[in-house]
Order: sequence, then structure tokens, then C-alpha cells
Amino acid sequence: MNLIGIDIGGTKILIILTDETGKIKNRVELPTPKGSPALVLDKIVQQLKLCEKFKSIGVGIAGDIDSKNGIVRHSPNLHKWTNVHLKKYFEVRTNVRTVVDNDANCAAVGSYILDGKKKYKNFITITLGTGIGGGFITNGELYRGSTGSAGEAGHITINQNGPRCSCGNYGCLESYIGTKGIIRIAIKQGLKNKNLTPAVIAELARNGNKKAVLVYQKTAEYLAVGTGNLINIFNPDMITFSGGVSANWDLIKKPFFTELKKRVFTASLKHVKIIKSKHAKNLGAIGAALLSKKSD
Amino acid sequence: MNLIGIDIGGTKILIILTDETGKIKNRVELPTPKGSPALVLDKIVQQLKLCEKFKSIGVGIAGDIDSKNGIVRHSPNLHKWTNVHLKKYFEVRTNVRTVVDNDANCAAVGSYILDGKKKYKNFITITLGTGIGGGFITNGELYRGSTGSAGEAGHITINQNGPRCSCGNYGCLESYIGTKGIIRIAIKQGLKNKNLTPAVIAELARNGNKKAVLVYQKTAEYLAVGTGNLINIFNPDMITFSGGVSANWDLIKKPFFTELKKRVFTASLKHVKIIKSKHAKNLGAIGAALLSKKSD
Repeated sequence: MNLIGIDIGGTKILIILTDETGKIKNRVELPTPKGSPALVLDKIVQQLKLCEKFKSIGVGIAGDIDSKNGIVRHSPNLHKWTNVHLKKYFEVRTNVRTVVDNDANCAAVGSYILDGKKKYKNFITITLGTGIGGGFITNGELYRGSTGSAGEAGHITINQNGPRCSCGNYGCLESYIGTKGIIRIAIKQGLKNKNLTPAVIAELARNGNKKAVLVYQKTAEYLAVGTGNLINIFNPDMITFSGGVSANWDLIKKPFFTELKKRVFTASLKHVKIIKSKHAKNLGAIGAALLSKKSD
Repeated sequence: MNLIGIDIGGTKILIILTDETGKIKNRVELPTPKGSPALVLDKIVQQLKLCEKFKSIGVGIAGDIDSKNGIVRHSPNLHKWTNVHLKKYFEVRTNVRTVVDNDANCAAVGSYILDGKKKYKNFITITLGTGIGGGFITNGELYRGSTGSAGEAGHITINQNGPRCSCGNYGCLESYIGTKGIIRIAIKQGLKNKNLTPAVIAELARNGNKKAVLVYQKTAEYLAVGTGNLINIFNPDMITFSGGVSANWDLIKKPFFTELKKRVFTASLKHVKIIKSKHAKNLGAIGAALLSKKSD
């Protein structure tokens, strides 16, 4: 039977129809409508009506999610999304069982199955984008923590005196290498392009701009500090990166591993396999679909 | 039936005889003999011969432990302890089943049972002493990671440019507030006592020495950064502190919570219960004893 996976982001919504193994059968991308949650959800339901038959729906969304009850407690990148009963909404409209989880948790489940083939039981996915997220699989199960808020890899302090983060803390990993953080590094390095984005900086770097290369070197070093913390704590089998900025893994990889070696216990580092997910672009949606199947 | 718990430290060895609930029936403290592992272990076995009958032995020891096979891969605070087959040694000499684990893992198991009464399923114990250790219980089970090296709470980087740590990394929590780190803070604050130790500094602070008070304020703040990282990652139900330096919780507590509030997601902070273990002095040994029972 088919599954639906939906990744609701601040700028776009990805809807994927997969088979039970996570293989993509259909894929639609929509711009996220500006407006109330109801407006956004109506748009999605319209799309679902055009789909083949499906057995369950999985929804991944950034923010603080009550996955048990399928409620978005708060989503920072979406306007006025507070206490949105997402599960209920979809189930009433579609009559299909729906599960809702944090987007990074969905990505971790997707990557655990597709990249890791379920062989790597202690597994971490770090999502690199506007924000930095984390999903943790321990002993083959998604670890959600006590109130569903575990995995905030973006909000580990890597420098207690670092820049203010959107979460209120100082020196979080996200404050350094979330989209805004990367642009801040670029400005510091003297890059003057008006429309600086991580993608623009990456293009400059690939074309030989030394300042842009240095931006990704710094980004890689910060990422290594945060990743190193997770390795020393979790001693995982595998770590994968996904999210928009992971598209620049070619620029990140070398300085990342150089820095990581300085920071991590040798035995743990030797053991862990670290890659960019082969499914990075669709991982949130595919993982949501697979998660909806899993909770049968 | 009785259980034996042994906590082998760099300066002293604690041997505890408990009942099956972890209640102490007998307690012996020995100075750790200077010499080969065999010398140290012979001394312990001599003591065990004087004990009442017991069913199993648990041994907690700082360092990198292969708990599956009961081998001390490496223990930094003990001289030349590399690849010591501890389990085999005890089983041959005593004919009693023996389990071996990292001392912080033992402390976590002890605290989970004695402080938390097994009610708090996601549980962390942080040991504050010469080094900083961590033990993690997830979903009611000790989490050891993929090669048994999980839980290195002392080796989370809290400042990527911080002081060099004994592990080789820079700015680890342990480099700030392990014993040496606390003394470094004291010297920076201008404390001039020749025999500075965390205990001496704490006494000065309790007697109103403002510089000493400030040493513990800084210590508390660093501890809050590290603890905050763990809360944002694990979203646990309970955190306990043990180890020698936790005896100074009276000086740490207030600035710790002030700093922690700035650093942690509100929902996770509201949920988590944080205390100094009521069994801090004996936790490693009691936990080892209980762990030996658990693996029946």
C-alpha cells in the first residue's frame, strides 16, 4: 500500500507518495501559502485528493511537536502555528490515520531506513538549514525524550560566550551555522554580494573565491565541534547530514573531518560512519511517510 | 542475597556489601595501592574473603570499559591499566559472577534506582570529581552506545577555544570544572592558598571569602552550560549530581539554576527534576552492586 509523507517548511511544502519501502512514486512541491494554519492545511488536502489511494499520512514539521497527540505546540518558522491539532485535522478531512513529528525526527527515521538500511542501531541525523535540527535513533528506536523535545542538536552551546541564538541562549550551534549564522560569517570575511545565501556563498567558493571557501571552512569547524559533542555523548554507529545546506558537503567535508579528529575519542571516531544522506532532498517527507507506517 | 559493589578510583577503593535493594550492610575504604593491576586486585580479593557470602560482584572504574567482556580498555587515573581482564580476574579468584562498567554508568544505575526509584525513565547522572563523567538511562535502560563509550558528559565542548583538556580536545566541560579546572579558576581569581583543592576552596567560600564564592559561581555557570546541552539533547526526566565536588552543591545550586534558565528550552526545563544525589558518596559502589544483580 502507498504512504503519504508531508514536509511542511516555512517556504515550501513537500508532498511525497511512496511505497512501503520509501520508494518515491510521486512528488509535489508547493510554496507555503502565507496565512493561517487552516489555509495552509486546506491547500495540502486539495493536493491529497489528487493522489492515488494511500494507507497513512506522516507529517514532519519544524518545532516543538506533541507527537503522541499529533499537535504542533509551536513552530517557529510558520506564522501563528501554536497548538495546531494537525493529526485531528488530517484524519477528519481524509479519513486516513495520520502521525505528526518533528521534521528532524522524520529525517532521522528516513535516513535510518534508507541510508543505514536499519543496520546501524545508534543513529543520528543532523539537518542543516535555516535552523539546525537533530533526530536520534537509539537501539533502533526513535528517541523523543520525556516530553518529545529531545534531539535539539542545533541548541547545544559550543561557545558559552557566543552570539545570541533565536532560542534565547548564547553560542548555540545554530547561532553559528544556521542560515543566518553562515551569512554572518560571510559578512565577517568581507563577502559583499547583496543577496548572500548559503547557496550563493557555496557557488562563489566552487568558483575559487577564497573568502567564500573560508566561510565553509569555518562552518565545517563549528559543525565538527557540535558533531563531536554528540559522538562523545552517544557513541553512535552512524551520523548522516541532510537539509538544504548539506548540498554543500563537498566544501564542508575535508575541514570537518580535520577538526573532528581533534575533538573526539579515537575509539568512538573509528567506529562511527559519517556521510551526507543520499536522500537529503526528500528525507523529511519520506521519513514522515515511513514513520506513519511504522506506528501501525 | 548479598551483593558486592566495588568502586576503584585513583586514590581510594570503596568496597560495599549491600542487600538486593542497595541498602548498605558493610563498607570498607582502602587507599589504592601504588603498583600493578595485579597488586591492586589482590588487595581487593583479600578484603572480599573477609565478607559475608555474596551472589555477584559489580565493579565500577573510570575510563574506557568493555562492559560486555568485563575488560578495562584504559583507565586514565590508574597506572598502566590497559586491557585488564577484570571480570575474568574476579571470577577466577572468587568463583562469583562479576560485571564491570564505567564508574559513571554505575553511579547512574545506582541513582536511577535509589534517588529516582525507577520512576524517571530518562535519567542522567553527572559525576563531579577529578574528572567529569556521565551515565545515561534511556527508557529505563543504561545507554552504553555502540562500543560502550557513550556518556562522556565531561567531554562536551562548551567553548571551542577553551583550555586544552586531558583528552586532547579544547574547552571540554572537564577542562573547566574537573578538579584541575576549578583550581585554575581559583588561581585566576587570585586565591593564594598553597594547597588549593575544591574542598579547601569550598571551605573558604563558606567562611565568606568572596574570591572563593566567585570560584564556585563560575564552576556553577560552566556546569549549567554543560547540563543545558544535555537537557536540550535528551529532554530527560531527572538529572542527579554525584562525585566528590557535588559535596559543594550548597555553593553551586543557586548560580547553577540562574544560568541554566538562560540556556534551556522552557518545556524541557520545567519537566526535569535536578538534585544532588542523596547517596553521592557511595553511589558508584552501590550502583555497581545493583548493576551486577540486574544482569542476572
